[in-house]
Amino acid sequence: MTRAQLFSQIQQKSSFLCVGLDPDLAKIPDHLRKEADPIFSFCSAIIEETAAYAVAYKPNIAFFEALGPKGWETLQKVQEIIPSDIFTIADAKRGDIGNTSKLYAKAFFETMNFDSVTVAPYMGADSVTPFLEFDEKWVILLALTSNAGSLDFQLIKGENGKPLYQSVLEKSQTWGSPENMMYVVGATRGELVGEARKLAPDNFFLVPGVGAQGGSLEDVAKYGMNSSCGLLVNSSRGIIYASSGNDFANVAGKEAKKLQLEMAEMLEKYL
Amino acid sequence: MTRAQLFSQIQQKSSFLCVGLDPDLAKIPDHLRKEADPIFSFCSAIIEETAAYAVAYKPNIAFFEALGPKGWETLQKVQEIIPSDIFTIADAKRGDIGNTSKLYAKAFFETMNFDSVTVAPYMGADSVTPFLEFDEKWVILLALTSNAGSLDFQLIKGENGKPLYQSVLEKSQTWGSPENMMYVVGATRGELVGEARKLAPDNFFLVPGVGAQGGSLEDVAKYGMNSSCGLLVNSSRGIIYASSGNDFANVAGKEAKKLQLEMAEMLEKYL
Repeated sequence: MTRAQLFSQIQQKSSFLCVGLDPDLAKIPDHLRKEADPIFSFCSAIIEETAAYAVAYKPNIAFFEALGPKGWETLQKVQEIIPSDIFTIADAKRGDIGNTSKLYAKAFFETMNFDSVTVAPYMGADSVTPFLEFDEKWVILLALTSNAGSLDFQLIKGENGKPLYQSVLEKSQTWGSPENMMYVVGATRGELVGEARKLAPDNFFLVPGVGAQGGSLEDVAKYGMNSSCGLLVNSSRGIIYASSGNDFANVAGKEAKKLQLEMAEMLEKYL
Repeated sequence: MTRAQLFSQIQQKSSFLCVGLDPDLAKIPDHLRKEADPIFSFCSAIIEETAAYAVAYKPNIAFFEALGPKGWETLQKVQEIIPSDIFTIADAKRGDIGNTSKLYAKAFFETMNFDSVTVAPYMGADSVTPFLEFDEKWVILLALTSNAGSLDFQLIKGENGKPLYQSVLEKSQTWGSPENMMYVVGATRGELVGEARKLAPDNFFLVPGVGAQGGSLEDVAKYGMNSSCGLLVNSSRGIIYASSGNDFANVAGKEAKKLQLEMAEMLEKYL
């Protein structure tokens, strides 16, 4: 998918919602456990009810990988039923030396047909650039994550006074362009979204941490929106586990719609 | 596997060789392509001929993941045929927020039965500690890698004058112990192995980059060996692709033996 196609979808739906698919056998509704592939049934129902409000889906690969080879088959089936005009993110946080990263890229872009994959920056240029060699495919590079551990290394200041996440933003922009590189920028410290925006004015940001983790959607929009929106705000648990009853998909749809309506306001106000 | 068991195996075999299993369909001998599972046949033959000289095997997960669900079945079969007294490393370079890292840990330690998994440090404590909660299982944390991109971020000096990889070594030692935490420390700059050893005197180092990538085994032993050896030196391509003929496994065995003999000398000299 191109950046123009993604922005056009954002405008059509008045939404920049990414729905995170973290399907946990221990958390999905009881009645689904009788199905042949409970995780697929769960994701499929969630997608059906939320697709009108979401511009992206982000399966977290760990939840599938933990199920062994069968989990990978399920992941592939889930990828295939996501409507083709919706952006897909393999949240895999991969990254290895060059020839190995190339294989990970093939796994997610060719064996499966994801639009993008999340990549960890620690190993530097040659661990990231192999993912950038596929047409209309994207790297979403970890810059500033939303977890507590992000404080351990990402905010360490270098001799030049810049925290590590800023060095990642700066250096990696020489590897890709706003047409094939996005960044993970957590919402938990709104003003840092603004700092990241200064360093990467045109790139899309995938923003976790709104809601459950305490980030504010208004702050993210205020500090982070650019002229192509430039934001994909993720919600996982707040949508997919909003209800554990028979009505889980319906309630997920309602939660997604609620967020979409807030996002429509933000687009009105800041775009 | 415990640290004492690993050291005892090193002493028995006079070896600290880790054989990297990077099985690439494009590189394995032609005649194997007729087999039902060529990658399994390849790995199986390599393991049979090298097991006498190796104390560890390190399948690189990307090579299996690139083959889709079938690749994961192959990985599981490969893990199962590795002799149980040999240390196994899932070279996966995973790392995600806490509850997600826990699932990756389950995938490699429970769904499969690896002794250890390589983990990327960028996301900090809560992305690493879930892997440390399994008895006799190990985290091998990326500190200083052997690829060109390692220069991009790992050597950035902080305000305290310490390069990032040293902050990773220091901070992460508060999360685990030498009984469940090893580090990846590349061999391409021998003196840096010595710097890392000062900061982590008792931990095992998994050392890539000897041979093909230019690192010297003598330097690694001189700068890196501790009183429990503390080294697992990896060789992948130099062993598994030493011959592309019908004799590939036999030649791999000979290359492994050659390295083992050099290692025996190093153990004699520096242990």
